[in-house]
Amino acid sequence: MVDGAEAVYVGIDVGGTNTGAGVVNAEGRLLATVKKRTETSDGDALVRQLAEMVRELLTIRSAEAGFPSSPETGTLRAVGVGIPGFLDARRGVVRHAANLPLRDYPLADRLGDQLGAPVILDNDVRMYAYGEAAVGAAAGYDDALVVTVGTGLACAVVHRGRLLTGGDLAGEIGHVKVDGNEYACGCGMNGCLETLVSAGGIVRQAKELMRWKSSVLGEWFPERLQAGRSMTAKDVAKAADLGDAVAAQVFERTGRALGSTLAVCAALLGTDVIVIGGGVSRAGERLLSPVRRALVERIHPLHTERVKVTAARWTDEAGVIGSALAAKARGEHTA
Amino acid sequence: MVDGAEAVYVGIDVGGTNTGAGVVNAEGRLLATVKKRTETSDGDALVRQLAEMVRELLTIRSAEAGFPSSPETGTLRAVGVGIPGFLDARRGVVRHAANLPLRDYPLADRLGDQLGAPVILDNDVRMYAYGEAAVGAAAGYDDALVVTVGTGLACAVVHRGRLLTGGDLAGEIGHVKVDGNEYACGCGMNGCLETLVSAGGIVRQAKELMRWKSSVLGEWFPERLQAGRSMTAKDVAKAADLGDAVAAQVFERTGRALGSTLAVCAALLGTDVIVIGGGVSRAGERLLSPVRRALVERIHPLHTERVKVTAARWTDEAGVIGSALAAKARGEHTA
Repeated sequence: MVDGAEAVYVGIDVGGTNTGAGVVNAEGRLLATVKKRTETSDGDALVRQLAEMVRELLTIRSAEAGFPSSPETGTLRAVGVGIPGFLDARRGVVRHAANLPLRDYPLADRLGDQLGAPVILDNDVRMYAYGEAAVGAAAGYDDALVVTVGTGLACAVVHRGRLLTGGDLAGEIGHVKVDGNEYACGCGMNGCLETLVSAGGIVRQAKELMRWKSSVLGEWFPERLQAGRSMTAKDVAKAADLGDAVAAQVFERTGRALGSTLAVCAALLGTDVIVIGGGVSRAGERLLSPVRRALVERIHPLHTERVKVTAARWTDEAGVIGSALAAKARGEHTA
Repeated sequence: MVDGAEAVYVGIDVGGTNTGAGVVNAEGRLLATVKKRTETSDGDALVRQLAEMVRELLTIRSAEAGFPSSPETGTLRAVGVGIPGFLDARRGVVRHAANLPLRDYPLADRLGDQLGAPVILDNDVRMYAYGEAAVGAAAGYDDALVVTVGTGLACAVVHRGRLLTGGDLAGEIGHVKVDGNEYACGCGMNGCLETLVSAGGIVRQAKELMRWKSSVLGEWFPERLQAGRSMTAKDVAKAADLGDAVAAQVFERTGRALGSTLAVCAALLGTDVIVIGGGVSRAGERLLSPVRRALVERIHPLHTERVKVTAARWTDEAGVIGSALAAKARGEHTA
């Protein structure tokens, strides 16, 4: 069906805990994936692990395609790596990545040497956005804003299929102070949007509200019971589904806070679609509805008639596919 | 000094009241300008006026350069026109422009036919931003946000010397609702940022505050005196210079409201420089200082250490120069 010389691209989504990798064809179709616990002893060991994952993927793929192949057959054209942290993407250097043993580390060159293929780096949220724009919920729109809400909150802007490149700090909308919010943020500031709009932020708000209002969450997680597991954003979502007033109020505040910030972004960029991904996006309409309401209240109908707010198509896969396709695009751009 | 075949470019900044035009060389140096009251009877009459202005400019320039020239000598390479309103820039069509007799009018083609040179159109704020990025206060920065505060409030994003193209509605940050503000806006909404951050917004706030606090503005513009001229933003700036508390408070609120919105924009884009132009920017530090304070309060020091907030270099000229250079760039891009 496919021939041995078909060009393939590998995308790797490196996380502080797990790392996923996948091989895609030129159309962005995912042919095989692998996932491992991230090697965090040092940079070179991580690079060896990533190279091993790439080789494994190509073997899997070759076996599936029904003929022998290897990295040496020349089918691997480029590799893209998404990393959470501060990067010098142009030079392929990781300047600092939380929970990873990388500081001013030339990851692109080191991995490229191991694989004999060009390697590009970019921020994980940007790679995810690129994937959603290429083959996900943002595909076909001119101006997309892709937001990930999970442990943290960040976003990336895609214009006609191309990532908008700002400085290292572009997309950090999670660290803008919100009026009337004073929660301390991990970044050192107080009141950041991320202290509300994140998995931790949802739990934090629920715990605070439970002091004043009764909630099914109080039954599930009684304060004096130290033994049980900790409350998660998923629990708050479950409570919301049962009509719990505390949980409903938490999602309302969270979605509105996010929507108020996205209103400025959409007016600035003339956005056509806002795609919300990341773990917390599994809350679906509980989160998306108040985002839409905030947009309607804050920006002109000419905008809101046009801006679609939707959940991401992919969870982890968009990061892998986006990394692979970004590597492909970079190759075409510089060829 | 220059020879007859030197390439020149004309930029035209069409306003509801006056229209300015200028001729620049390939480096963006302004060689001559003309200004006229805008012809508003109909589209074709306006096009004839613009063509006449271009011919006049080329004659002025020829006379200055000390040799005879005309549009026919081939020195005119391209014309750029900045228009306030909704445009289809790609097709060169004005869809709707307030105070101008243009509706779905193919201005680029019509003017091009008259001049025998390529004509491009874009939104006036974008042309202005392009000028500030090329030869003004945003020159040399990777990621610039150029804001104009005058009758209205709008902005444009420049990344490495290129205008970021969103939809028709990109840059309309003046029409985002601000918490705690309920002034009716001309756009049909209530509480838009522009109802505070604009020439009219500054006067509106001053008049409201004067009801509660004594101000030198009350002496200058006594309520019962119907004969005198109306208060302007310039008067409020003058009062601020005299230490007037009302005027100071108005600029503080205006600058903070603007800064709070720009904080989101800067975090989103990783902005290096925020350039504030338009008539109200003549208030200088009275406006810029509270903008900077709002940024420091709202975004991370990593951002604020980097973002410079500065007044525009040019007033009207940036629109003219930007239009001319945008036409030049378009020609090179499509050549």
